[in-house]
Amino acid sequence: MCPHALIPYKPKNPKTRLSSLLSQEEREAFAFAMLEDVVSAAKDAMCSPVVVGTELFDSELVQVTVKDADLNQTLNEILPTVETGLLILMADLPLADEASIRRVTSTTKDMAIVPGRGGGTNVIFMKEPKKFHVDYYGTSFLKHMKIAADAGLSVEVIDSSRLHTDIDEEDDLVELLIHGTGKSRAYLESLGFSLATETGRVRCARKR
Amino acid sequence: MCPHALIPYKPKNPKTRLSSLLSQEEREAFAFAMLEDVVSAAKDAMCSPVVVGTELFDSELVQVTVKDADLNQTLNEILPTVETGLLILMADLPLADEASIRRVTSTTKDMAIVPGRGGGTNVIFMKEPKKFHVDYYGTSFLKHMKIAADAGLSVEVIDSSRLHTDIDEEDDLVELLIHGTGKSRAYLESLGFSLATETGRVRCARKR
Repeated sequence: MCPHALIPYKPKNPKTRLSSLLSQEEREAFAFAMLEDVVSAAKDAMCSPVVVGTELFDSELVQVTVKDADLNQTLNEILPTVETGLLILMADLPLADEASIRRVTSTTKDMAIVPGRGGGTNVIFMKEPKKFHVDYYGTSFLKHMKIAADAGLSVEVIDSSRLHTDIDEEDDLVELLIHGTGKSRAYLESLGFSLATETGRVRCARKR
Repeated sequence: MCPHALIPYKPKNPKTRLSSLLSQEEREAFAFAMLEDVVSAAKDAMCSPVVVGTELFDSELVQVTVKDADLNQTLNEILPTVETGLLILMADLPLADEASIRRVTSTTKDMAIVPGRGGGTNVIFMKEPKKFHVDYYGTSFLKHMKIAADAGLSVEVIDSSRLHTDIDEEDDLVELLIHGTGKSRAYLESLGFSLATETGRVRCARKR
């Protein structure tokens, strides 16, 4: 009833699509704040977070450090060794909350998947991780659905905008400023970001 | 147990942010296909769809035609006259399905709201419409939460990516091509649209 939650995380130079808005130092602090929000939500949902980082970083969090940059290979070496239910969730899901993660881990199917915006995969829950393997990048959601089908695993696709919303681009910051309640929203606000509605369409603006 | 579902709809020159991809005639056909998907989902969820159109259009659907272009004024004249539960859902939610709409209409709170991408409001369900009024445009989600709070109405915010995803821009078409199952996806495909993953990031492409 307390699955491990693997959280892939890149501490150095993350979120480059936000480079026009945030310096590298700010992007690193922002990514860490999002990670903290995800870890907090996972703990609230009674999961045990394990950060799968590309390098060791200064934190109290439980970390597995991987030498290889290939996320798929790393995870696919871990999966066959896990005898219990396992959650993999991305570190850029700061809208994740207890309720949305519990909807994933309480599936009655063999697995649950939450697609990300643009066809990615934001969350995977496997009751028997050894029967599955991951294939991230591109339209990984469709790839993961096929891998599950080929392995004879039933899948529930969880319909959650909180877990669907990965933060990659400026428009995504708007979602965080509207719906976020954690450290990453507070960090953005500390940098001067707020909602700008003057032009009709809602955007975010930064005071400098 | 069978609430009316008001569906605001603009038959003429809709979805102008897709103008670079679709001609006006195509946008009108696409908007109608999306409307048909929404109507179908509403019926599956045991709602009675009523299209609130800016002008009469050729269809078997139940229509209310409004002279005035102001959606807020029109809806706010209707709300006080409704004695039963009432759903308002937008016509550009082709990923809506029975399950997601039922999550909205089965709320135990006074109301349920589904925010749209960018702070809009995609779906509202009111058990007592006369106690509420709408204020669309801009960050209407935040405005609607405040109107509800001021009226002493409890609100459940429904966490659904299917109802969160309104189709306005090119990136949204990717969501429809991945997750859609209805007429609007088929229409896009009939025009030659498909997923393009060559560049790493998933986009949609059109064969001409």
